Amino acid sequence: MNGLQERKIRNIRLTIAYDGTDFCGWQVQKNGRTVQETIEKALEKLHKHPVFLHGAGRTDSGVHATGQTASFISDAENIPPGKFNLALNSILPKDVRITGSGEVHPSFHARFSAVARTYHYYLYPSGVRHPVLRNYCWQVKRQFNLPLLNDYAARLVGQHDFTAFSGPRNEDKSPFRNIHAASFFPMNGFTVFSITGNAFLWKMVRSIIGTLLELEYKKAGPDRVREIIESGNRALAGSTAPATGLYLHKVSYT
Amino acid sequence: MNGLQERKIRNIRLTIAYDGTDFCGWQVQKNGRTVQETIEKALEKLHKHPVFLHGAGRTDSGVHATGQTASFISDAENIPPGKFNLALNSILPKDVRITGSGEVHPSFHARFSAVARTYHYYLYPSGVRHPVLRNYCWQVKRQFNLPLLNDYAARLVGQHDFTAFSGPRNEDKSPFRNIHAASFFPMNGFTVFSITGNAFLWKMVRSIIGTLLELEYKKAGPDRVREIIESGNRALAGSTAPATGLYLHKVSYT
Repeated sequence: MNGLQERKIRNIRLTIAYDGTDFCGWQVQKNGRTVQETIEKALEKLHKHPVFLHGAGRTDSGVHATGQTASFISDAENIPPGKFNLALNSILPKDVRITGSGEVHPSFHARFSAVARTYHYYLYPSGVRHPVLRNYCWQVKRQFNLPLLNDYAARLVGQHDFTAFSGPRNEDKSPFRNIHAASFFPMNGFTVFSITGNAFLWKMVRSIIGTLLELEYKKAGPDRVREIIESGNRALAGSTAPATGLYLHKVSYT
Repeated sequence: MNGLQERKIRNIRLTIAYDGTDFCGWQVQKNGRTVQETIEKALEKLHKHPVFLHGAGRTDSGVHATGQTASFISDAENIPPGKFNLALNSILPKDVRITGSGEVHPSFHARFSAVARTYHYYLYPSGVRHPVLRNYCWQVKRQFNLPLLNDYAARLVGQHDFTAFSGPRNEDKSPFRNIHAASFFPMNGFTVFSITGNAFLWKMVRSIIGTLLELEYKKAGPDRVREIIESGNRALAGSTAPATGLYLHKVSYT
């Protein structure tokens, strides 16, 4: 005893939603407001010392999240694991909300324990742009051929070298990624593209969307998707779709 | 001739959509960015002199529009009436879009010629607040009793003194307004309240929504709506719903 009482250390997992519009992405950087830094500041207030937050997905500037996850080591014994969401939400700005919290095994790591990520991309087929939607989807002035888009999407599934769909400054060690599922479907007036994979290269989802929409506009055959993947040539793929339509929807663990 | 050639004067009507989040409402005021001033500045650029814009509805700070209308007198002969939308959109910031333009009779006035306005109010029944929706609806943590809400809405229809539902600083000469239709319906995951009337008192739609949701929560009988209207007592009505959920949907002319 004598003040040497052992403090209880817990590993806490958070589920997080945010509006990416006013953030320079997830990851802490020198200049610009980030989601990671915003939550770390709130955690520091609760813990009275700095806390490092591991995020599952490093979303870019303008990209949103409905199901981001993150984990941190806590010694705040006064806060029950299931109450971190309320404690944090009372401090956080309104463009970030903690939608759930709980204790996880000490070996859990939000990024390295994740087995799959699902991204959603919201397309809005419209003649006139709607100002209230401008930061939350990609407004495209035409109707889509959904069956053809789904033929393309099916060609993405499987383990491939996705170099042709990576951003110019991609820093990942391996260009191979395993896509579990990919499809387009109508939802609430939007056309949504859902893609699940073990992980994604930098700007991969947005490059895929930009490319598939260009192929569909040109009425290209579905085999063109495999040709582009196999070429490994970014120049053969299409432009990168805007960040505004992209949402980190879910991170899955075993 | 001798430079005395007569200039052609036309009356132009605009249809306007805007995201009200970063505006201090429609009407020009000394401090703060307004929609009217923003469009007037763009019109001044096109005309090389100041142009006054008459709006149909003076929306408050944070209130959105999908179908606001406005009119102005133009001597810009080089711009066809149906092209003002494109000319203005190339100048305007992205949170305002002109969705249509055309020439109207010289007697047309966006505000005084209007015979009806339709407002939509977007409610989102959810347990957890979604950050991307925070400025575009009212997120209420419960499910709604839609049949009961529609029983209330039906009691609003007709010509009534709506003093009980007016804002504290309402400056309208008469408190009588004629409500043509009012109903709640589900749309794209939202519960939408649509109300059409000849005109509305200040904060009237938001006072109605705040009141009807309180009545529904308390399971009050539908006759309570008429009692509140007839009392003329703002204190008997409920709180004012947030501006974020309100949209000026449509302005109708004969």
